[in-house]
Amino acid sequence: MQKIRIGILGYGNLGKGVELGTAQNKDMELVGVFTRREADTIQLLTTNSKAYHIDEAKEMTDIIDVMILCGGSKSDLPTQGPEFAAMFNTVDGFDTHAKIPEYYDIINQAALKSKKTCVISSGWDPGLFSLNRLYGEAVLPEGKNYTFWGRGVSQGHSDAIRRIEGVADAKQYTIPIEEALDRVRKGEMPELTARQKHLRECFVVAREGADISRIEQEIKTMPDYFSEYDTIVHFISKEELDRDHNRISHGGIVLQSGYTGLHKENTHIIEYGLKLDSNPDFTANVLLAYARATYRLNKEGSYGAKTVFDIAPAYLSMKSNEELRRTLL
Amino acid sequence: MQKIRIGILGYGNLGKGVELGTAQNKDMELVGVFTRREADTIQLLTTNSKAYHIDEAKEMTDIIDVMILCGGSKSDLPTQGPEFAAMFNTVDGFDTHAKIPEYYDIINQAALKSKKTCVISSGWDPGLFSLNRLYGEAVLPEGKNYTFWGRGVSQGHSDAIRRIEGVADAKQYTIPIEEALDRVRKGEMPELTARQKHLRECFVVAREGADISRIEQEIKTMPDYFSEYDTIVHFISKEELDRDHNRISHGGIVLQSGYTGLHKENTHIIEYGLKLDSNPDFTANVLLAYARATYRLNKEGSYGAKTVFDIAPAYLSMKSNEELRRTLL
Repeated sequence: MQKIRIGILGYGNLGKGVELGTAQNKDMELVGVFTRREADTIQLLTTNSKAYHIDEAKEMTDIIDVMILCGGSKSDLPTQGPEFAAMFNTVDGFDTHAKIPEYYDIINQAALKSKKTCVISSGWDPGLFSLNRLYGEAVLPEGKNYTFWGRGVSQGHSDAIRRIEGVADAKQYTIPIEEALDRVRKGEMPELTARQKHLRECFVVAREGADISRIEQEIKTMPDYFSEYDTIVHFISKEELDRDHNRISHGGIVLQSGYTGLHKENTHIIEYGLKLDSNPDFTANVLLAYARATYRLNKEGSYGAKTVFDIAPAYLSMKSNEELRRTLL
Repeated sequence: MQKIRIGILGYGNLGKGVELGTAQNKDMELVGVFTRREADTIQLLTTNSKAYHIDEAKEMTDIIDVMILCGGSKSDLPTQGPEFAAMFNTVDGFDTHAKIPEYYDIINQAALKSKKTCVISSGWDPGLFSLNRLYGEAVLPEGKNYTFWGRGVSQGHSDAIRRIEGVADAKQYTIPIEEALDRVRKGEMPELTARQKHLRECFVVAREGADISRIEQEIKTMPDYFSEYDTIVHFISKEELDRDHNRISHGGIVLQSGYTGLHKENTHIIEYGLKLDSNPDFTANVLLAYARATYRLNKEGSYGAKTVFDIAPAYLSMKSNEELRRTLL
């Protein structure tokens, strides 16, 4: 069997997750890791591949079937996405929800022109959570959809705290509020404010001499990030932060609650939950399942940008359609 | 907007659920309910449609876009499935897991010949649960998959009890065992026997003078159905059965547990759960979402038998692809 030849662009936590994930998928092999750093300064976790400078990628279009883009949504993907869609089938986890339509159009144009297949915004949110919002809404149209995140570290909120004057380091946990979850699970279909759904808990390392009550105030009143939530702020030492808050676990829950029956007498609850020890590892594995789909769709001549909504589930599986019907249906 | 014109074949609990579900989907309208009974003896729940004898269906192929087959998997669908696939786009909930491959082939042949699109084995298991087994396995290939059913009434097991001599009526509940669920949720990936996963609880009405200890013994030792499980048998009156056990609620949980990391140090748990007040109503709504997909696929010239694995999620939604990307991704 010809294996699917994978390339990785960007070697942070997500890129490392993809490297390890490739070894879990028996129909894939890792061709190389591409980085903006000097390639020979990069020590890979595994030994069956090597690191290359990003500029070498364009010479390797015929030995890589799918390039997994592991850069950030803010500054990497908006340029790398279209650039690589012009050369490779790609999969990325573009997660700036508000900019997805615009990003989709840019990637779609580049990929249609190059006859490549490019899956955008894969992972778990956007990704598996999006799928569950869609399936939930489709089967319970008279209902309501809820997404809860956490308990887990929000990178964006942690970064926002770090930008405050006097802050040396910080981690922010997003925590779903149990009471709100319980009401949804009971089928009450409540209207919930941001404050009723999630709590924000911050662990902050202040610089020496910094005014911690000002920092706390600035966090709690920060628009978009914290002002609409109940926020707990703890000041701790750098040692405590590094010791107790070094994990990148995450998770969350998508719920759909809806009615049926002549008098709406029947309530139904669909609950999809993730508990992830490593957010980047799990995200990487989702990207790889979609890399398989990307490869197959491209072979079939289905070009352009795709999202998880556009891809039939069978494309993600190592099993044949016949085997899927026999063993998983 | 041209609405999707729905027909219903078979007017039991599932057919009634489809009738009510059609009204929840603004892009659908119900054309008629088809039955083997005398059509004028059928009183529909809603007033915007009417009942026809099954023989009239063949005259209505040009005014029905999708026929939902609501008969049973044992005696109705094996004949009605291919017969109707020769005339209509169809959706069914064929749920005899072991016979799905054979049923698929029969429907596929009929539908390819008639240029129709026929979704088989939709609903929640097979159906939404199957999807979650596939997605789970694809994203956590080094892992294990578990399906728990209940708490809910198993029709097949209830029927099996009713066939025992001296039994007037019976209901059997399938109940997941909490201890097993907890172990899976902790990521232990245990090997579980049938007995460790589910408990079977039976409520039995005995005929006057029947030997209840023999009935209990026959239930508990019945191969395939009960002998591999711990089974609790209660004898109650017909009045109690009708009063306390008349609900058709059901549900269950699909879990995928898997490892990632260089030393398999990270555990991930995906949990998909359903809590359904009405099993037939919910199943009906899933069939209708797949009716939308069936209609669209047929318009695109994608003929033959399909399962939930073959259908991109976007086909199930009332929303356009652009709207899906903007609102649900």
